[in-house]
Amino acid sequence: LVITCGAAGGINALFRAVLEPGDEVLCPAPYFVEYGFYAENHRGVLKAVPSKPLTFELDIKALAAAITERTRCVLVNSPNNPTGRIYTLDELASLADVLRQASARTGRPILLISDEPYRFLAYDGADVPAIFPVYEHSVVVSSFSKNLALAGERVGYVAVNPAMPEAGKLVAGVILTNRILGFVNAPAVGQKLLAKALGHEVDASIYAGRRDAMAEVLREAGFAFSMPQGAFYFFPRIPKGSDDAAFVNELMQEQILAVPGSGFGYPGYFRLAFCVDESTIRGAGPGFARAFAKAMG
Amino acid sequence: LVITCGAAGGINALFRAVLEPGDEVLCPAPYFVEYGFYAENHRGVLKAVPSKPLTFELDIKALAAAITERTRCVLVNSPNNPTGRIYTLDELASLADVLRQASARTGRPILLISDEPYRFLAYDGADVPAIFPVYEHSVVVSSFSKNLALAGERVGYVAVNPAMPEAGKLVAGVILTNRILGFVNAPAVGQKLLAKALGHEVDASIYAGRRDAMAEVLREAGFAFSMPQGAFYFFPRIPKGSDDAAFVNELMQEQILAVPGSGFGYPGYFRLAFCVDESTIRGAGPGFARAFAKAMG
Repeated sequence: LVITCGAAGGINALFRAVLEPGDEVLCPAPYFVEYGFYAENHRGVLKAVPSKPLTFELDIKALAAAITERTRCVLVNSPNNPTGRIYTLDELASLADVLRQASARTGRPILLISDEPYRFLAYDGADVPAIFPVYEHSVVVSSFSKNLALAGERVGYVAVNPAMPEAGKLVAGVILTNRILGFVNAPAVGQKLLAKALGHEVDASIYAGRRDAMAEVLREAGFAFSMPQGAFYFFPRIPKGSDDAAFVNELMQEQILAVPGSGFGYPGYFRLAFCVDESTIRGAGPGFARAFAKAMG
Repeated sequence: LVITCGAAGGINALFRAVLEPGDEVLCPAPYFVEYGFYAENHRGVLKAVPSKPLTFELDIKALAAAITERTRCVLVNSPNNPTGRIYTLDELASLADVLRQASARTGRPILLISDEPYRFLAYDGADVPAIFPVYEHSVVVSSFSKNLALAGERVGYVAVNPAMPEAGKLVAGVILTNRILGFVNAPAVGQKLLAKALGHEVDASIYAGRRDAMAEVLREAGFAFSMPQGAFYFFPRIPKGSDDAAFVNELMQEQILAVPGSGFGYPGYFRLAFCVDESTIRGAGPGFARAFAKAMG
């Protein structure tokens, strides 16, 4: 385990440690937009594979078909930003099977990287399956920004599966890349704050109430969406016949801030964050309804 | 100006913003060993040009001769780690002339980057000349690790010369690269600590006393060296006929921790840090004398 400058710093250090020029990073879409930059920073190429609409279940066949000799790692994010989807143990086990076969074929183990800053935020008692027991060449990256409300303080970690034969070597590599990329160490004061803050997680039930409110608002306005199982985002489909960037502009006219799905490699959808007061969410109801009706003509 | 995760994070963000694959970073030697990694991280190549022994004055002719069409920037560090040298206004002006001519020849402005974390630590009232008035395509990188004793907290900055025609574009570039390299922001709590700590610099006179003590110890032991004008390092020549790595091992036998000059791209020398108590420095006198005598046979 290496304490890093947030999860973003951790993924960059990890990519610097494992990517050769031209190596491919496979990633289910929609994905967090900066993953593409992270791969490019270190001479890699992000290759996105669309998940199944509207549930955002992993498309295992498509992922298997997208693997090439240049595939160095697969990067998953669960609970997912922007969909709120949690990948099930079955999905992860199927993915692990595919990766084991492909690794045997190419002779180079493909890493499975799981970015999990929203692990603490799962609704209806949902379980977020751990990847270590599922696949030995796995790495967990996370941060304390969300669960301890330490955003801005830049403390996260890279945890390498101890079952990985090259675990010690990879940890040593990340310690070096973390240093030479200029992170050097996670902020010292932040690490002390973190030690004090552990065990005092934010109250996830507040988010559950907001989630229900936003589901109600979206349903009443007419949107099709999958109920998020974790994190604090909705990723609804845009009304038929409209363009996601244009529709997000329409929402802006209604004082509603959304991000077009294209930015996450998944056009035709848009992302909403519900880390705002429930009254704000309910207050946006009429705006959502007007924007939907207008787009439907 | 962009607040960065230390000077190391700042140089990485800057290199990511300005280097094209294969671009050269010219650097006077001896230089801080990690500069080479920083350049390589972003597809650049560090090209070192030895400064003049024993004063470590910039070798302007050699620097001029080393410039090629791929030279993207020159990175200087003053007061220098490991030599303690402060580049004079004359040296910097000559370097600027060379860079202006070369930029005109290649049609691409060569950046002059000055890494200055030791600016506050200059002895005998020495002035550390500012590079902004000397050369318009210049960038200052620094940190607060040393002057405010905030090491580990990772707060530094990249300051772009406002006279540079592309200043706004470069600042925007560094804001983006700082984000996508995973730094995102300098630690939030550290920035608040910094604001409180400004104006309470560490007492440089303590270092002046240690410098004098170490000079005395080295002189008595027989070493040739140039008196450091700033920072807290000596970079003495090793006794004739010995190898720097082997000599550093000899010093270790005497409980003296030094770094071989080869690590700084300048063999035949070694680096000593005097950020330790004066009594420790004086106590090492006999050890230095024994190691020197032994190496001289």
